[in-house]
Amino acid sequence: MASEITKLPEPPCFVVCFSSQRTAGDDGYGAMAESMVALAKQQPGFLGMESVRGADGFGITNSYWTDEASILAWKAVVSHQAAQRLGRERWYEDYRVIVAKVERAYDIKRED
Amino acid sequence: MASEITKLPEPPCFVVCFSSQRTAGDDGYGAMAESMVALAKQQPGFLGMESVRGADGFGITNSYWTDEASILAWKAVVSHQAAQRLGRERWYEDYRVIVAKVERAYDIKRED
Repeated sequence: MASEITKLPEPPCFVVCFSSQRTAGDDGYGAMAESMVALAKQQPGFLGMESVRGADGFGITNSYWTDEASILAWKAVVSHQAAQRLGRERWYEDYRVIVAKVERAYDIKRED
Repeated sequence: MASEITKLPEPPCFVVCFSSQRTAGDDGYGAMAESMVALAKQQPGFLGMESVRGADGFGITNSYWTDEASILAWKAVVSHQAAQRLGRERWYEDYRVIVAKVERAYDIKRED
């Protein structure tokens, strides 16, 4: 998935940061990842997503949301979807999710 | 820089998400990036940093901090350092920084 920087509204909004270390091999991961992105885009409150994974299998996905209720709704959909598939433990050596409230944003045009 | 998932304290803490699209060529970028990481690690309130850049030049760096004052202090150091060098506009086609307050965290061990 090619990423570009999400255009955000004025704060506050919310960011979900997903950091992960992939296991070796695809094992259905690619299809699942595409499905997760498609699901997010359909969710109310979704503002955008940025995702990068390095050659060593470490990846970061930051997704942006208008409010916490939208994140919880997305989490419920994702959990349901994941339960129907292989389970995240198969694809990841390690991962961590945080939910955070965006308080300030700077971009290249406004940065001093 | 090899990344691993930062061990976070109980919320709240703060995350700085830096998304960027690199320009072509190194042009001093590698040395600057290493210096920025070293500076962050020396700062009070620094909890950890995760960073990935893809082959297409798009990158995400999430750094974690105990409080906002620590972030502002780091920003002042980084700005000073950057001003002494080439300026960020040279290295990036586009970038965006957000500061966000971490409200919840889940990891692979605690996730349902």
